[in-house]
Amino acid sequence: MSKIKIGLFGFGVVGQGLHDILNKSKGFKAEVVKICVKTKTKKRTLPENYFTFDKNDLLANPDINLIVELIDDAEEAYKIVTTALKNGKNVVTANKKMVANHLEELVQLQQKHNVSLLYEASSCGSIPIIRNLEEYYDNELLNSVSGIFNGSTNYILSKIFNENMSYPVVLKQAQELGFVETDPTLDVGGFDPKFKLVIIAAHSFGIFINPDDVLNIGIQNLTDFDFQYAREKGYKIKLVATAKKIDEKNITVFVIPQFIKPSGHLYNVENEYNAVIVEAAFSDTQFFLGKGAGGHPTGMAVLSDISALRYNYRYEYKRHLQHQELAYSTNIDLEIYLRYSNENLLNKLGFKSITERFSGVNDNYVIGVISLTNLIKNKSLLQSENAFVVNTGRVVNPKSSNEEKRTEKNLTETVKLVQ
Amino acid sequence: MSKIKIGLFGFGVVGQGLHDILNKSKGFKAEVVKICVKTKTKKRTLPENYFTFDKNDLLANPDINLIVELIDDAEEAYKIVTTALKNGKNVVTANKKMVANHLEELVQLQQKHNVSLLYEASSCGSIPIIRNLEEYYDNELLNSVSGIFNGSTNYILSKIFNENMSYPVVLKQAQELGFVETDPTLDVGGFDPKFKLVIIAAHSFGIFINPDDVLNIGIQNLTDFDFQYAREKGYKIKLVATAKKIDEKNITVFVIPQFIKPSGHLYNVENEYNAVIVEAAFSDTQFFLGKGAGGHPTGMAVLSDISALRYNYRYEYKRHLQHQELAYSTNIDLEIYLRYSNENLLNKLGFKSITERFSGVNDNYVIGVISLTNLIKNKSLLQSENAFVVNTGRVVNPKSSNEEKRTEKNLTETVKLVQ
Repeated sequence: MSKIKIGLFGFGVVGQGLHDILNKSKGFKAEVVKICVKTKTKKRTLPENYFTFDKNDLLANPDINLIVELIDDAEEAYKIVTTALKNGKNVVTANKKMVANHLEELVQLQQKHNVSLLYEASSCGSIPIIRNLEEYYDNELLNSVSGIFNGSTNYILSKIFNENMSYPVVLKQAQELGFVETDPTLDVGGFDPKFKLVIIAAHSFGIFINPDDVLNIGIQNLTDFDFQYAREKGYKIKLVATAKKIDEKNITVFVIPQFIKPSGHLYNVENEYNAVIVEAAFSDTQFFLGKGAGGHPTGMAVLSDISALRYNYRYEYKRHLQHQELAYSTNIDLEIYLRYSNENLLNKLGFKSITERFSGVNDNYVIGVISLTNLIKNKSLLQSENAFVVNTGRVVNPKSSNEEKRTEKNLTETVKLVQ
Repeated sequence: MSKIKIGLFGFGVVGQGLHDILNKSKGFKAEVVKICVKTKTKKRTLPENYFTFDKNDLLANPDINLIVELIDDAEEAYKIVTTALKNGKNVVTANKKMVANHLEELVQLQQKHNVSLLYEASSCGSIPIIRNLEEYYDNELLNSVSGIFNGSTNYILSKIFNENMSYPVVLKQAQELGFVETDPTLDVGGFDPKFKLVIIAAHSFGIFINPDDVLNIGIQNLTDFDFQYAREKGYKIKLVATAKKIDEKNITVFVIPQFIKPSGHLYNVENEYNAVIVEAAFSDTQFFLGKGAGGHPTGMAVLSDISALRYNYRYEYKRHLQHQELAYSTNIDLEIYLRYSNENLLNKLGFKSITERFSGVNDNYVIGVISLTNLIKNKSLLQSENAFVVNTGRVVNPKSSNEEKRTEKNLTETVKLVQ
């Protein structure tokens, strides 16, 4: 590619951040030819002739050889990106929801039209995790990739644990500051980190998982009781996204709040910071930390993709080609803390074993082992009962095959034991 | 490049680690054609016909298109690497001392002979710092790159702080375990992290600094008194390598032990782990952690370089081409803790100001501001007096130009004040 001529979709926080960096960065030459925006009445920081409201002014413009897509609307983004790829243009996007939902098709479009789609900024803001998975860990045997993939919830959890505040109070503050959307579900419900997890799992294990099939438990139901429990044990609670190998044939992925000890790498990851832990056979533990949001950090990730397109860089999706044998499985047991009010809930969930049980006036909790399959099955029940689930992070031994039978037996026995 | 055919120099910990990874890694095809080793009598884990003792069997072999150099001897490594480059072969090396001492010439040789020299494994083991500086931060405005670049000293310091042990005891143990060489100076004297720092500074700021011009204060003089001082303040001591911008024209680099607070990113970096903190204008703080040593982690870094040579990857040294205007300067003030016995030492050092002073039966310390220039000038004096220097890490205000005059005045005044 000779000179990079950009057609930019969206001029919000990240779009303006990118424009700012392009102006200030030394030695990098790329021209923003045109910017397509939605709202006609908004006051802009650039001259009017930069802007258009017609996407074809960019997509059908032979002067533009790179589309940078930085809009919020995932459906519209999908239309823009697929059209651009079909028109033979390279694309850089930051839209995690769009990429996660359509990754398989997007990979095929790249191959078919011999173009490149890069999306480093879609996952964990300024942390160069996708490029490192593609380039540096391309021959590694990865065991797990996990971490804090959402800055908004991490900001909320940091406030709660470091300033002793209640969840509803912090959420309101965060909304007022613009750190969280008016409808906060995407963040606090764990959907945003789930999209990132699906993308990262594709580059870690070569497997395309439908986000709808993946469990995301958020932090909406966190109460002062849960916070105090964690505090007394010396833990923090972080919203952790995990992708890991179960065995040679299967991997699993999930987003669940997790207890973190002071010695844990994630313990000091605070506020809008994101972090990724890579566990691999040869390089062992590697840890990456960086800002998960913001115009400049995310804009920088976008720029690094633009810069890589100078030499026509493309993701190889090597693991996808190599590890076709890997499947997504939810057949794994987790030890969880469950805080709940209604005893009936417990029976419906199907714990395999319960090792601790507490009953109070308003709140009860158990610590026990449950399958990920059962958690997925009962997700909306947990939500409607205002129960709160935290992964203890402790490793549970692999289960036998006659799983369901053992479950009921264990539960009855354990409940007898602790009552 | 078609099929990668490797001529390997050295079959020690890293060489064997690499060979092991090449065998176990899926999908990556590279053939080790021949291995050149030094000691004829050593028992090897591979068949005899793999080995040779004549370097020309590799360097002049038209069947070999890649030289991987993993020997200890920096002088011999220099001869091997330069000959290979001149013979038109790509080279991967892990030899930090060789690269740091000859970087400018090695860059020229790459250009002249149109070949590639990669050395990710030379700096911070498994952390992909050089590739990220080259690829991800290539358009960033970097303010500083710093961290723990030496696993052996970090292992020793971890033992001291976490297990309440004395430096000489831990050093002896580490030597017996093979974590530190019989002559430990390269590690505990801070030479090894200095070589890495010089390489990282080249890729961060585009400047080639002679390692001989860079201050390295090690941990050899650390006593129980220093340890207890840090402990009481709630600090750990880590051996920190720092490269940072002073102003638009100057950067500075140094290796000095540093106090680290519990909230600091380096506080929980323990044992053989290395860590790098990148501070940049747009992406802000980024933190990388990984194993700094060992056959597999370092072998993995070597493999990532070999893998990149599949598509003829070369470092661009873009910052070197862009930022020719940057110069190396030692004209910077540091606030240090100095523990010493002989009062005369203090007068010779030329502190600019002293804010704390303690006198005990055997040990004295001061906290004060001193220029890096003065520390360099008095390095051997500090060593021979068994004094211990720790950077407090606090930022000192920029000094005026009539530096030397102010120094003496301040010193006299402050000494009066505290006596």
